[in-house]
Amino acid sequence: MSDIVTLNNGMKMPLVGLGCWKIDNDICADQVYNAIKLGYRLFDGAQDYGNEKEVGQGIRRAIDEGVVERQELFVVSKLWNSFHHPANVRKALKRTLDDMGLDYLDLFYIHFPIAFKFVPLEEKYPPGFYTGEEEEKNGTIGLENVTILDTYRALEKLVDEGLIKSIGISNFSGSIIMDLLRGCSIKPVALQIEHHPYLTQEHLIKYVQNEGIQVVAYSSFGPQSFIELGMELAKTTPKLFENPTVEKIAKKYGANVTASQVLLRWATQRDIAVIPKSSKKERLLENLNVNKILTLTQDELDQISSLNKNIRFNDPFTWNDKVMLPIFD
Amino acid sequence: MSDIVTLNNGMKMPLVGLGCWKIDNDICADQVYNAIKLGYRLFDGAQDYGNEKEVGQGIRRAIDEGVVERQELFVVSKLWNSFHHPANVRKALKRTLDDMGLDYLDLFYIHFPIAFKFVPLEEKYPPGFYTGEEEEKNGTIGLENVTILDTYRALEKLVDEGLIKSIGISNFSGSIIMDLLRGCSIKPVALQIEHHPYLTQEHLIKYVQNEGIQVVAYSSFGPQSFIELGMELAKTTPKLFENPTVEKIAKKYGANVTASQVLLRWATQRDIAVIPKSSKKERLLENLNVNKILTLTQDELDQISSLNKNIRFNDPFTWNDKVMLPIFD
Repeated sequence: MSDIVTLNNGMKMPLVGLGCWKIDNDICADQVYNAIKLGYRLFDGAQDYGNEKEVGQGIRRAIDEGVVERQELFVVSKLWNSFHHPANVRKALKRTLDDMGLDYLDLFYIHFPIAFKFVPLEEKYPPGFYTGEEEEKNGTIGLENVTILDTYRALEKLVDEGLIKSIGISNFSGSIIMDLLRGCSIKPVALQIEHHPYLTQEHLIKYVQNEGIQVVAYSSFGPQSFIELGMELAKTTPKLFENPTVEKIAKKYGANVTASQVLLRWATQRDIAVIPKSSKKERLLENLNVNKILTLTQDELDQISSLNKNIRFNDPFTWNDKVMLPIFD
Repeated sequence: MSDIVTLNNGMKMPLVGLGCWKIDNDICADQVYNAIKLGYRLFDGAQDYGNEKEVGQGIRRAIDEGVVERQELFVVSKLWNSFHHPANVRKALKRTLDDMGLDYLDLFYIHFPIAFKFVPLEEKYPPGFYTGEEEEKNGTIGLENVTILDTYRALEKLVDEGLIKSIGISNFSGSIIMDLLRGCSIKPVALQIEHHPYLTQEHLIKYVQNEGIQVVAYSSFGPQSFIELGMELAKTTPKLFENPTVEKIAKKYGANVTASQVLLRWATQRDIAVIPKSSKKERLLENLNVNKILTLTQDELDQISSLNKNIRFNDPFTWNDKVMLPIFD
């Protein structure tokens, strides 16, 4: 297994990247810069993460110092829910490119198959769940009647313009993926989903891989990502790092192999890319080199897959009490 | 609670109807006719069931004999997967109307959010999973690149023409329903889904009901419908009729109340329509009158809902070994 995969449009993407979700603004530029020096080439960001300026600073510093060239990097962002209208897609992307100081993205995802009411960039950016003063006052979220295919076609135009090299979809489930594939002109290169041993999604992944779409896993450590957000379900779900099956397998491979490496390798060995986040240099290297260090047996992969409980932590149905967003129901 | 619900377009629909799935052709006309005499007004059929001629015979006999008038009936069919292309939607509906000998349908569903390759009506009808000689030989299913919204817009034209009074969606999940609602001009009046105490789908139902869309349950008795199809999962799943919770509740209401009535009432009391099938007169009456005979307590409704195990029997992912159809993944 190579550390690099070839996407359905011929582009090369590393199987391990740095996830930029929740990297604090004050340390973000340094972290990205240091990650590049350590060998990271894939950076998974999003408009909603609110740190694209800093991600761009880190990238440009590394380029300016000759550590890496732009074309060696695979830079990713995600179109936020508030910018689905075809009239807003391009200007939202331009904001990302301006913030990062880059000419193009390698991959631009639709973050969720959910269309929020547009928020002017100068009013609040990134807007998060804010969709206007009235909604803010009422504790609701304003929605917009723009279909996924209309948004997607606006992204296809950005590919034609050369502003993005490829299109991805994130948090899409089977029925809407099938429909998108029936209607798109440029196939998405990647699907990014929550994926860990408590949420293995085997049917969906089998389908998507068979369609030649790269699966990218987020929250590879399961509840871990959501504990710091104070999510009750995450706090009460047993940690995957302490799962006896995962621990036993890690132990078998020696004192240098960690439970988190077992969790990442379980994904990459099944052709699923991972984008863990870390602020520690040793951890960054540990994650980056996981494919060189470790190869699990088929039986071990199966043991980990059998931990599935269909527990989903990032479910928009729980975002708001008044506005139901059943994208996984 | 009334036995009749008002749909979002103002039409009235009974909460209990007769499901025509798997009614044998040789007894179907009589059964439909007898059901009308017993008081049934809602008939839930589909092109794929292969018995629309007989359903129509039963209906026309009752009308001809003056038992009922056409406008008192609520006649339903479902567009099969092979006819999703806008060029084929109208002729497929005309086939249904011709077969039934009717001028219009009260409700026409999209049977699945899956587009099969078109099969000419004269080649094989209903085509089932057949999509051509080559696919038949290879054991596959041919698919067609027609989006749900394109099919749906062809159905909207049939409403404008008066050939169907309303549009429904069947076997649609959250993300594709949200997208359809963002793009349609005429809102669907109903969502028909597999629904029983092993598959309660609470988020989806809450969302759909909040949107003013009537939920119609099929396979209200769970595994029962699928045992006769030889499905292994159905054979090995404990029968809902023999579930201790359901049995205990039925017993409480006296010897005349059956477990199947408890299962139906659990749905209708939560504003979900049901379409059980039966070939026995007593059973037909037992089902039809369930709302008059029985009212469960909130605690009993909750007890039954808590039997949920997310077990789905009718999953297109299992239809074919080679063609994956992950509409529920």
